[in-house]
Formats: sequence, C-alpha cells, structure tokens
Amino acid sequence: METASLTIGTFGHGCVGQGFLELLNAHGGTAAYVKHVCVKERGRERMIGNAALTYEAFDILGDEQVGVIVELTNDPTLGFELIKHALNSGRHAITASKRVVAENLAALIALQRATGRTLLYEASCAASIPVVRTLETHFSGEEVLRIDGILNGTTNYILTKAQEEDVPPGTALRQAQKAGFAEADPTSDLSGDDTRYKLVILIAHAFGTVLAPCGILRHGIEELEAEDIAFGSERGWCVRLVASAYRSPEGKLVAHVLPTFVPVNDPFAFVRNEYNAVRIEGAHSGTHFLQGRGAGRLPTGLAVLSDVQQLLQGGGYAYAKVNVRAPEPSFGDQRILVYARIPATHQELLALFDKVRSLESSADAMRVVGWITLSELSLLLGDGRDGFQVVALPHLSEQNNG
Amino acid sequence: METASLTIGTFGHGCVGQGFLELLNAHGGTAAYVKHVCVKERGRERMIGNAALTYEAFDILGDEQVGVIVELTNDPTLGFELIKHALNSGRHAITASKRVVAENLAALIALQRATGRTLLYEASCAASIPVVRTLETHFSGEEVLRIDGILNGTTNYILTKAQEEDVPPGTALRQAQKAGFAEADPTSDLSGDDTRYKLVILIAHAFGTVLAPCGILRHGIEELEAEDIAFGSERGWCVRLVASAYRSPEGKLVAHVLPTFVPVNDPFAFVRNEYNAVRIEGAHSGTHFLQGRGAGRLPTGLAVLSDVQQLLQGGGYAYAKVNVRAPEPSFGDQRILVYARIPATHQELLALFDKVRSLESSADAMRVVGWITLSELSLLLGDGRDGFQVVALPHLSEQNNG
Repeated sequence: METASLTIGTFGHGCVGQGFLELLNAHGGTAAYVKHVCVKERGRERMIGNAALTYEAFDILGDEQVGVIVELTNDPTLGFELIKHALNSGRHAITASKRVVAENLAALIALQRATGRTLLYEASCAASIPVVRTLETHFSGEEVLRIDGILNGTTNYILTKAQEEDVPPGTALRQAQKAGFAEADPTSDLSGDDTRYKLVILIAHAFGTVLAPCGILRHGIEELEAEDIAFGSERGWCVRLVASAYRSPEGKLVAHVLPTFVPVNDPFAFVRNEYNAVRIEGAHSGTHFLQGRGAGRLPTGLAVLSDVQQLLQGGGYAYAKVNVRAPEPSFGDQRILVYARIPATHQELLALFDKVRSLESSADAMRVVGWITLSELSLLLGDGRDGFQVVALPHLSEQNNG
Repeated sequence: METASLTIGTFGHGCVGQGFLELLNAHGGTAAYVKHVCVKERGRERMIGNAALTYEAFDILGDEQVGVIVELTNDPTLGFELIKHALNSGRHAITASKRVVAENLAALIALQRATGRTLLYEASCAASIPVVRTLETHFSGEEVLRIDGILNGTTNYILTKAQEEDVPPGTALRQAQKAGFAEADPTSDLSGDDTRYKLVILIAHAFGTVLAPCGILRHGIEELEAEDIAFGSERGWCVRLVASAYRSPEGKLVAHVLPTFVPVNDPFAFVRNEYNAVRIEGAHSGTHFLQGRGAGRLPTGLAVLSDVQQLLQGGGYAYAKVNVRAPEPSFGDQRILVYARIPATHQELLALFDKVRSLESSADAMRVVGWITLSELSLLLGDGRDGFQVVALPHLSEQNNG
C-alpha cells in the first residue's frame, strides 16, 4: 500500500496524449506528474497544464528526474527506439501503440528481463477494457482454451451503421473520424492489421506464444458489400470483425482475424459502435466476457493512466506463460466454415474448399458456404484480391460444428 | 518482473480450499507453495498433495517460514481473527470470505495501513470475475457513476431454472447444491445477505465509501412466487437478483440489493445459471461489462490463486478512493419504481407509495406498480414479512425514468 512518486516524460500529444493528461490532471489523488511533453509539430496551441512543452527528445531523455517514458507518438519506429532507450536507461515505459508492441514483442520481453525495468501497454488492446492486466493477473494460473475479441472500434462502428441503418461504409467512417475515434488513415483498421496487432498481444498473455503479426491470417472489411451483410441478416446473423485464438484438437495454437457472422442473440451482436469486447474461455473457470469502449480520447487515456497507477504500485507483467507452457502455432491445417463471395471469373478457386455446403451463382459472383483450411483460405484471398470477401460462420471450427 | 517465493499456510479445506490447492498444484510455474493445511474436522480423507495436514492453528501461526495466510474457513469470527493475526505478525493474508471483509472492512483497511501488510480478497466477489482488481487498477483514476451486479450464483441458478423451465425453487436449490456451488445452508444467498456483503466490497473499491452491510436495503427471493415471475414474463422481462450502487442527482451514494426485472435483451438477461456479471459505468470510459462463473470449486479457487500471483508480484490494494473522493451515503430518499405483491390484508401499506401506476387486486393479494423511496420500501418490507415480494422495474431510479 506504499506508493512512490513518479516523474513522467510524455512523447506525443494527439488524441490519446490529450486524454491521458486531462485525466491525470483531473485526478488529484495520484502521486505521478508529467514534467515534459515532447511533440513533433511546432506552432499548435496545446493544453498541457503545468508540463513543459519541448520539441527535443533529449529534454526528456537527458533529464535524470524522469523515471517513466509515456510513448504516445504515431511513429512505430520512433516509438520502439524511445521504449528501448527508456528501459536501457533504467526507466519504465508505457505505450499505447499496439503496432510497436506486436512487432517487437519478443525483443521487448527480453529487454525487460535484461534490464529489470517494466513496459506496460494496457491502452494498446481494446482501450478501456483492462484485458492485458486481467490475462496477466487473473489467468496466469489458468489454462486459456480460447479467446475471441472485437478489437477495433472503427470497423465495429462501420459494421454497426451498415447493419442497422444501411449507412455506406465511407459515410460511417467519416462519422467515426469526426467523433474522434477513427484514424485519419483507416487502412490498418479496415484491413484487419490493427486487430491483428492486438491479437498478437492477447495471445502472448493468454497462451504465452509470441507470434509475428504476419504469421496470423487476417482479412478485413474493405471488400464487404451490402449483399454480404444481407446474406447474414436473412439467417439471423450480423457481421463483426473478430480476432480469434484457440487450441486445436492437437494442442496447437490457431489464430485468425476474420469478419464473422454472429447470431443476433450472441453477446458479440450487442457490442455496437465503437465498443470492443473480449471473450475468454478458461479451462476451469468457464467463459468470461469483458466489454467497454474500444477507442476514443478518454477511454484510451484512462488505460494509459491505469498503467501509471500500476507502476506506482510496482508491478510489471510477469509473462508467466511465455516459454513455459506456450502452445506452438498450427501450420494452417485447421478447417473453418466460411461464407465466401468470389468473382465469377475465378471458378477454379472453388477447388480450394474441402467441402462445399451451398453455392449460389450470379453473372458477377459466386457465393459459397463451405469448409476450408486456413492455408487454403490464405491462397484464396491472396494479398487483398479485389472482389473477394470472406465471412466466417457462427460454427467457426470443426470442433464446434455441433 | 522479479518474483519472490511464498510459503503459504491455508485454513479450511472445503470446496474453495480444494479448488485452490488443485489449481496451485496443477500450475507448475508459480513460486508459491502450500506448507500447511489446517482443518477443523478430523478423520476425513483429504487430497492435500505435499502439504502437512494439521488441526492446530498454531502449527501455521507459529511457523516463521509462513509468509501468507490463506483463510478459507466458513467461520467469520475465526476468519477475522486469523487475518488480524496474519497482518499483525508481519504476514500477508488472502480470504474468500465476503462476510469477513464486508463486516470488518474499515478495520481491515486501517490494519493494512498500520502494518504495511496486504490483504487480498478477489474470490470474495463474483468468484472468477476479477472485478476487485479491475476496480483497483483500471478505475482508480476514473469516476464510477454506477455499478450493477449479479453476484450470487445460487439465486441466479434458481431464477434461471424457475424462469426457463418452471422448476420450483426448492428443486433448483438442491440441483445447485449437488453441482457444488450452493451452500448447505442457503439462507444468506436467498435473503440477499450474501449479495449485500459483495456490494459493500464493490462500493469501497468503486466509490471509496465504506458502508456497513446493514446500511444497505436488501430484499431477496425467499417469497418470490410463480405469479411474480409471470408478471414480468408477460412484459418481456426476466428476474435477476441485482446489487446496485449509483450517485444520486445530489451526489450521494445510493445502494440496494433487489430482485429486478430486466428486459430479455439486456445483457443481464443472458447471465444464466451460476454465472455472475458486473456492469460498471465510468464517467469517461462508458459502460464496462464483465461476466464469468460466480461460484464453484475451480472458478473460486482460481480467484484465490490469482491473489497469490498478485502477492508474488508485490501489489496490494491501494484503496485510492477511500477517504479521498468518497460520496456520502444517501438517507434513503431516492425514489425507485417497483412491482410489489402485498397481502390483501395490508391495504394500508399502499399509502407508502408516492405514486401508484397500476394496481390489481385478488382475494389474497394486491399487485402494485409504483414509485417509492428506499426508506418507505424498507418500512413496507419490514424484517422479512411473509407474503411480501418486491421486484424493481427496469427503470430503476428517477433519473432513468425516460
């Protein structure tokens, strides 16, 4: 119950940086304070309270009083450098960047172990849902069988609007940008890359396996059409972009990010707009469901603040499962049931399906429902082929085909 | 990331004690081990692995190696004594007893502050949902506006069976006891006392206010009849026993435990059988929803194990909001909308309602829907009057009457 005091240097003062500082200043009780805020762009007015504004990284890195670097830039290369520098110079670090963590996770774990310093990144995954901390503390002694998540607020907002109000994706995207929770460049959101970074982080804490992002099959909603949504609606399903990781019958780790049809009475169907949710299946403790705002200035700022609180209490991540009980990744031989819309000109690709359950053809496209392995699905989708859209079906894996 | 090792002495080896030991032994990675298990009843065969069985508390309390007391007895007087002894002798303590914590919370916080030792009790609230830890770490810098919970697995099991399968409460109770998550004596579950203990704990961590359990209005499901359930079913509602705490328009803290009608599309309606759930409304971060198993040997054992993990990482509860920003309790002048079944012989009690919305009378009973203050509701219910049943309506408070 003893708390030290922390002097913080923050890099970046965009959406999340502003939210973090606003909450920290509003929250009188904490023994942490931000001494410097370092930004790139000169000449903009900024609300930074009592902190000193600087454009020079060294003003923070060279200040011996600064014990914590809070990395909230939008530059993954710089972000990684700052975190490394922080840990190597005896400081702790906090970041909100899923990309920096996911792309360098093995190195960042090794660096924490070597330096004895802590990196925290609760804000990087599902913003205001404390899922990393929950996996670290509550599930460190529990075998996780499966984890599924709606982890991207922007795509979930677009899908909700498209599903419920027939709003075209472009319009919904602009609404989300205006509301302050979608990036100016939404490519990483729509492609599923953003979700995949988050899944890499969840997998490390849930299963102990440290994957490279590119090792996970992902397909986004860039090609999703009204007819795909309608295919689901007719069957009582709505579409969500779902990240999943689970153990195969052989004990291997299967992971993918796919648009997924969920029954309208499934808890995921109630996750609307920018909300995120995570469902964790524990071997002994059953199903856990966590839901909260997955984007936005204050929800994400709150997650950064919660990392500061955790540092004040002195705890880093234990990574209890990493290299101890971690399952190996599967080779892509897991079969899943999907709906696929394929251009009529690519009839030869139907051979990739192990088993076709139904097939409808029009002049333009074929709509297939069938079983396919993840590696064949990867072949089918290529590297973002135009006119292809796949949506996983409620009974995702062979195991659950009951 | 450094972890010490912990030597544990456990008191009690019932349902939760067995689950805890089973999970600790199955989970090779932890640096904690149970040296002694102290039990009351002699002569029963017990699976305690390498631990030494004893019937003498002093074998644990007198062993200097023991750094952590895990209190899993069913005796609240003994439990409190053991925890006090642990903290006063320089040890940490873990308990699963909501009653010990709720009835002695102010003293236990003071004792932790005085001794610098830690008491953890994640298992005491909603078993496998890490809600105490989530409130402590994630919401310590966030204003909580409202918290609602389904916190008792036994009553939720009974209500689910009654609602969905017309199973009489007594039969459902016996099923729950057989499945190992209902107490042999269910009085505290059915009366709402058990839920109220848990609400006291949640309020302390969510709002910072430390209430005595008896200061919270509670009404259970002991008198709930099929006709009350039917009243809700006809309107698209199902019954859950809900603990609620929220800020009144004047900034006071309102708290109650009441059977509550929830719309069938409300997330609480999907919380079935022994599952528990907690909904937290944050001022900045919006609505959070946590769901998981609320009872049972392994889910509860997992929560105890997670406290051990937290001790290994060195963190106690900070109680950041206690005595700092805690709202005062309201005086019972908050009005809520309820359904009440009142014996026909007590017509005079209708005067307690501020506003009656509807009234149906039969030879035996009156069924009222109306607004009533919490203090008048307390008068109406007396101390468990026969034949009275109140169920709160979906629009609980005046604020939400929209």
